[in-house]
Amino acid sequence: MVKIILSGCNGKMGKVISKLVDSSSELTIVAGIDKNTEKISFPVFADISKCTVDANVILDFSRPDALQGLLKYSKEKNIGIVLCTTGYTETQIDEINKASKEIAVFRSANMSIGINVINKVLRNISELLYKDFDIEIIEKHHNQKVDAPSGTAILLANTIKDSIHEESKFVYGREGISKRTNDEIGIHAIRGGSIVGDHEVIFAGKDEIIELKHTAMSRDIFAIGALKACQFMFGKVKGLYSMDDVVK
Amino acid sequence: MVKIILSGCNGKMGKVISKLVDSSSELTIVAGIDKNTEKISFPVFADISKCTVDANVILDFSRPDALQGLLKYSKEKNIGIVLCTTGYTETQIDEINKASKEIAVFRSANMSIGINVINKVLRNISELLYKDFDIEIIEKHHNQKVDAPSGTAILLANTIKDSIHEESKFVYGREGISKRTNDEIGIHAIRGGSIVGDHEVIFAGKDEIIELKHTAMSRDIFAIGALKACQFMFGKVKGLYSMDDVVK
Amino acid sequence: MVKIILSGCNGKMGKVISKLVDSSSELTIVAGIDKNTEKISFPVFADISKCTVDANVILDFSRPDALQGLLKYSKEKNIGIVLCTTGYTETQIDEINKASKEIAVFRSANMSIGINVINKVLRNISELLYKDFDIEIIEKHHNQKVDAPSGTAILLANTIKDSIHEESKFVYGREGISKRTNDEIGIHAIRGGSIVGDHEVIFAGKDEIIELKHTAMSRDIFAIGALKACQFMFGKVKGLYSMDDVVK
Amino acid sequence: MVKIILSGCNGKMGKVISKLVDSSSELTIVAGIDKNTEKISFPVFADISKCTVDANVILDFSRPDALQGLLKYSKEKNIGIVLCTTGYTETQIDEINKASKEIAVFRSANMSIGINVINKVLRNISELLYKDFDIEIIEKHHNQKVDAPSGTAILLANTIKDSIHEESKFVYGREGISKRTNDEIGIHAIRGGSIVGDHEVIFAGKDEIIELKHTAMSRDIFAIGALKACQFMFGKVKGLYSMDDVVK
Repeated sequence: MVKIILSGCNGKMGKVISKLVDSSSELTIVAGIDKNTEKISFPVFADISKCTVDANVILDFSRPDALQGLLKYSKEKNIGIVLCTTGYTETQIDEINKASKEIAVFRSANMSIGINVINKVLRNISELLYKDFDIEIIEKHHNQKVDAPSGTAILLANTIKDSIHEESKFVYGREGISKRTNDEIGIHAIRGGSIVGDHEVIFAGKDEIIELKHTAMSRDIFAIGALKACQFMFGKVKGLYSMDDVVK
Repeated sequence: MVKIILSGCNGKMGKVISKLVDSSSELTIVAGIDKNTEKISFPVFADISKCTVDANVILDFSRPDALQGLLKYSKEKNIGIVLCTTGYTETQIDEINKASKEIAVFRSANMSIGINVINKVLRNISELLYKDFDIEIIEKHHNQKVDAPSGTAILLANTIKDSIHEESKFVYGREGISKRTNDEIGIHAIRGGSIVGDHEVIFAGKDEIIELKHTAMSRDIFAIGALKACQFMFGKVKGLYSMDDVVK
Repeated sequence: MVKIILSGCNGKMGKVISKLVDSSSELTIVAGIDKNTEKISFPVFADISKCTVDANVILDFSRPDALQGLLKYSKEKNIGIVLCTTGYTETQIDEINKASKEIAVFRSANMSIGINVINKVLRNISELLYKDFDIEIIEKHHNQKVDAPSGTAILLANTIKDSIHEESKFVYGREGISKRTNDEIGIHAIRGGSIVGDHEVIFAGKDEIIELKHTAMSRDIFAIGALKACQFMFGKVKGLYSMDDVVK
Repeated sequence: MVKIILSGCNGKMGKVISKLVDSSSELTIVAGIDKNTEKISFPVFADISKCTVDANVILDFSRPDALQGLLKYSKEKNIGIVLCTTGYTETQIDEINKASKEIAVFRSANMSIGINVINKVLRNISELLYKDFDIEIIEKHHNQKVDAPSGTAILLANTIKDSIHEESKFVYGREGISKRTNDEIGIHAIRGGSIVGDHEVIFAGKDEIIELKHTAMSRDIFAIGALKACQFMFGKVKGLYSMDDVVK
């Protein structure tokens, strides 16, 4: 049984985590950390330094400014930490990397199992096919999303770029008269309704097409992935880990 | 049995037409017109004015400059004409419209049955859904296509625009920070491999999506549509007809 | 402002309805009916006969056995009723039809706007294409669904069957040696994960394919459709109405 | 430059091969073998034993009964052989395996690059996901195909079966009342129009779906794959090779 300290337990994702853990027989939340110390089925502390409960791993879905306290606690207790918070500064990322020399730290650009599986095989497929196939990405999100293309689309595009042994450039739409060049990777951002997040990579060759598609139906998948990460981190020693290690 | 004079019979599409008609019991080609007068299973004339064979309809897959001769013959013999040639000038289009006061003339932006069926129901769906659904178009073509988006995508986008009772603007890709506005119709041009032509209209609403998709597997579909048009034109009197009348 | 009496207000769908109405400026819930009379933002009565609040329409998401009381109240107050409860007996359906001679009654096999739009254009497309295109349906649902194919897939298949002027038979999968016959309509039930509900109708012809697809992302779409029905019913006189009338 | 002897050069696939090789700078056909000895741009022999031209590899698209002669020639000249003929008997397959102890023999269940790439990553994805995801296959082919499901769908299903560490059973459609069990792999055969061949593997989990899809637009892809195999076989010593080795 993996014993988790859940940082950000009264936030949106924190609540999803609590609900998922309730129906798991392999994980348990032993304590929560949140400014809002409303008790759940476990004790909640306003600050991790006050936490006196024994645990195997810290799972963080809070804010970047909690980082320092979390890493300090993690080192003192010598337990691993799974960081799912986004928006860290360069300095904070340096701190994270430095901490991983002493403790086991987990951090990923995207926490869903599915996207990481796709990202993994993408390396392989891109390397095999890029010479004879044109590569394009289509992503779809709800109409309230402010950035385009999505961070995950860029993650996938960079994976492709790094896997092929030639220069490539990203193209974000096409209008007018001009033929596709071999080095283009098209990235198309569809926006509409309440679409949670679809990502599709297309390899189009002479008379055949390969498509790799991921569909997210709710943001719960990030929580599910985070719990997979907690299980993965059980017993891990110092080092920097990511979803790449989980889906190996 | 509809008797056809095939103008442009030794061209690429002319040959596809001949092959398709061979296996039809409702249509027959009684004469061909082509600069290349190589005889096929029917007599071929270099100029339609020389053609002495009785027919019900002229099917034209030649060049714009053949127009005048074709319309003249059509009027003299009082038979309908199906124009599948593209690239007419404004003046020529005026001539076509004027001719339709005397004879039955058929002309369409896209000759495939499928695209026209989609274009038809699109009017209906757009009118019903535009208030609560965001509309986006994705089209896919081979990597040698020089224009983007495709003429058919623009045809569909204009059908949507004309069916909704509000202003709308076309958007050809998205990059950077900016939220979708209600009046956008996204049009995305994917290019790759040897894709013949896919067109997809997406209606994305609150928790539901409707998609309408057309896939072309070869350019034969334009020939199949043209033969449908010939059958439709059998016995028609003067007037301007299009695929809209066939898929009514 | 349409004033709604919500029958079944403390049930699962009732709560979804309440939440959606809260953010609407065109609808309001003036009273609820539920055995569980826990007050919400409106008064809740255990039995509709006790309800003394003025309203324009009754919206029912309760159980079949509530039918008689609802219809009686609807007649007394001369207000329309939207029935979203499923599982009525033949006798109850007769009662509903009889009531519609006196009051405005709304009832549909599927309450989502999207499915009804698809069902509508399906009639049109099937009639146009069935001679030259093969028709197949693919539906996808979560792995806990006990019946296959889905009721909605059968609804769509029957719409197709009724729209074509030839005999047709449903085929629910294929294995072994035997060629497709012209009169087949394939219906394929995919089951997996937590898929809410996808329905896709494929028209496959010579070198072209038309696909019509509906994706449900949550069961909220039935609530959204029910509220559309309430708006539609405002001011309607006696008669039997369905989603077909809403998406006309 | 790889010098090829093309067995079955005047057959359907033989002609596709000739056409493709014409535009290649890395391959050349130095001789053809066919009962129909009509000369092409290279000499054609009725029987391989009469062939006196120097070559690097034999490419066979003929009939199973040509096998013995081909293997004999291959051994004598010590050159590799790519067998794309299907329908071998058990005895012939034994012969092929035995020959591979002396010469380089290439043979694959499916000659397209795309299907083999999918088949390859499928092993990896299946192993990673089978515990939490349900796996289903959809394949689509034209309405004249007599067998269902397709050989390629069975190939993919067996790859999945072999990659997961639990029992599994194939299900070819669903009708009636019964819930999906964990050990099912659904295989659905859609038939319609002139579809060349689509294969899609769906991994459906809790709130996320991964799809892997292959679309064939013509049978040329088998020829393209066969030529890739010829290049791969250049300089290979004895052994049994397949597309798995090409897409490694």
